[in-house]
Amino acid sequence: MLALSLDENGPRVAEIGAPEPTPGTALVRVALAGVCNTDLELVKGYMGFRGVLGHEFVGRVEAGPVEWLGRRVVGEINFACGGCETCAAGLPRHCPQRSVMGIQGADGAFAELVRVPVANLHAVPDAVSDARAVFVEPLAAACEVVEQVRVAPGMTCLVLGDGKLGLLVAQVLAGTGARVLCVGRHPEKLALLARRGIETRLAAEWTPAPRTDLVVEATGSADGFRAAVAATRPRGTLVLKSTLAEHPRVDLAPLVIHEITVVGSRCGPFEPALRALSEGSVEVDSLISARVPLARAEQALARAAEPGALKVLIEAG
Amino acid sequence: MLALSLDENGPRVAEIGAPEPTPGTALVRVALAGVCNTDLELVKGYMGFRGVLGHEFVGRVEAGPVEWLGRRVVGEINFACGGCETCAAGLPRHCPQRSVMGIQGADGAFAELVRVPVANLHAVPDAVSDARAVFVEPLAAACEVVEQVRVAPGMTCLVLGDGKLGLLVAQVLAGTGARVLCVGRHPEKLALLARRGIETRLAAEWTPAPRTDLVVEATGSADGFRAAVAATRPRGTLVLKSTLAEHPRVDLAPLVIHEITVVGSRCGPFEPALRALSEGSVEVDSLISARVPLARAEQALARAAEPGALKVLIEAG
Repeated sequence: MLALSLDENGPRVAEIGAPEPTPGTALVRVALAGVCNTDLELVKGYMGFRGVLGHEFVGRVEAGPVEWLGRRVVGEINFACGGCETCAAGLPRHCPQRSVMGIQGADGAFAELVRVPVANLHAVPDAVSDARAVFVEPLAAACEVVEQVRVAPGMTCLVLGDGKLGLLVAQVLAGTGARVLCVGRHPEKLALLARRGIETRLAAEWTPAPRTDLVVEATGSADGFRAAVAATRPRGTLVLKSTLAEHPRVDLAPLVIHEITVVGSRCGPFEPALRALSEGSVEVDSLISARVPLARAEQALARAAEPGALKVLIEAG
Repeated sequence: MLALSLDENGPRVAEIGAPEPTPGTALVRVALAGVCNTDLELVKGYMGFRGVLGHEFVGRVEAGPVEWLGRRVVGEINFACGGCETCAAGLPRHCPQRSVMGIQGADGAFAELVRVPVANLHAVPDAVSDARAVFVEPLAAACEVVEQVRVAPGMTCLVLGDGKLGLLVAQVLAGTGARVLCVGRHPEKLALLARRGIETRLAAEWTPAPRTDLVVEATGSADGFRAAVAATRPRGTLVLKSTLAEHPRVDLAPLVIHEITVVGSRCGPFEPALRALSEGSVEVDSLISARVPLARAEQALARAAEPGALKVLIEAG
């Protein structure tokens, strides 16, 4: 089958052997996959990953349990062991023995076929198109914020960063009735939110003041963390979404003095993400920058790395 | 009156004018005051404070509202404006216009007399001696942890640091029925906890593993933060007590990957601290390293700065 694999020579599309079905797994014929910033980081060497890239996808089950055959699915990316203390505690996404699709110890979805544990599959409602379903994984990461922090109508929320994740988080927060401001560097990206009635501000025209109930840091930069701390009110909450490769110098004292709570936030639950896409409460169509066939998937990575790019989709089907 | 003041020449005991009573305040004749690490930081230049040092004290009301006259009191250290949004939200300890006794904009308690807003006074029960009552302020800071984080019996708790605050936090946590381990560098300090049935370990003989439900960082060092992150389980809580003057290099990615919650924690409520001292559920007598008369209070600061020192009391009465 055709796949975009990463090895010591970088990412490359080639014919490789198709995955074999194993007990408890399904083979999914990929229709569409999405390029995530994490993929770009993996190419730079993050996690030392070798194998097929890609963890955002939608496709149809081609082999596996009969009740799943032919169904259109998306799949959670953390493959838990199911037997350890962490899994028993209901935290499979944190299983210390986990592999992670296209990120750590498991081949990913920039391929014609991907192997996924059946436990990780979610059926996609007919109302959700392939192009929207491919956003379930990143949208679940955005939904994780409201799983972790109680967001009530009228609360002031600030999203720092107008990348793909920032745009999704801002929409999820706005859906709760909270008062949301998104600060970013790209007028054309902020305009996508403004069209949905969400307040936006260019970073150059904004100064943080310690007044916000909930700040979500999604800039992917150390400066973003500093600005987020400065914008959080005393006893407020700062949700950290960015995983930085660098170890920035950080002044931790304001966290103590203002008794700020910092909540690290990673992958999220698929159900609310699928629901949001079914109901149309989150808009993703305008976040698609390009569609590229799998045979030219290297170009998809290059396109996703361009300044101003949002979601680049890889057509595998 | 005699007082230990800090100016550009450093800390010095001298005769200065006594404070005048003002509306809404009381004058308290100080019996005992305690030296805090923050006092030592202030001497080094932290906050740029100038004035009478000291924010841990017990004394008797000498001037003020008639219902308070002659009563033995301790006093909360954050002097709030009472009129702003933050005060109205029930967070006077975070009032942005606040002064802080002996720390910021208000004279402190290393003196014969100290002026305190009446709203900040708490009567001390007869069962609590002066030498114990002087611990109410730091013990309140320890109690703040269990105000902010729900601690349940059987939870695993780790306290990093065996300084005064670490020893108090470990006792407060143990009082909840949680399983507490304190890791420190001083066998003689850890022995104080071991005598109360609290598990202890020397830092040199301990390696962090990501298994603890609740970690309290009270080492006052950047290394302590790194060890605390490494010891917190996925979705666990890290309470940050240390205010560092330095800006250490910090790897924030583990907070995101393991979805750790970091809770900044500063001053706490006086009531539970007074209750713990009344009931004897927290032991403070063994934390007293020395008692020094106010006339030689510079020596009290020097003694408190010695390695291994715990609480040094200043006798003002």
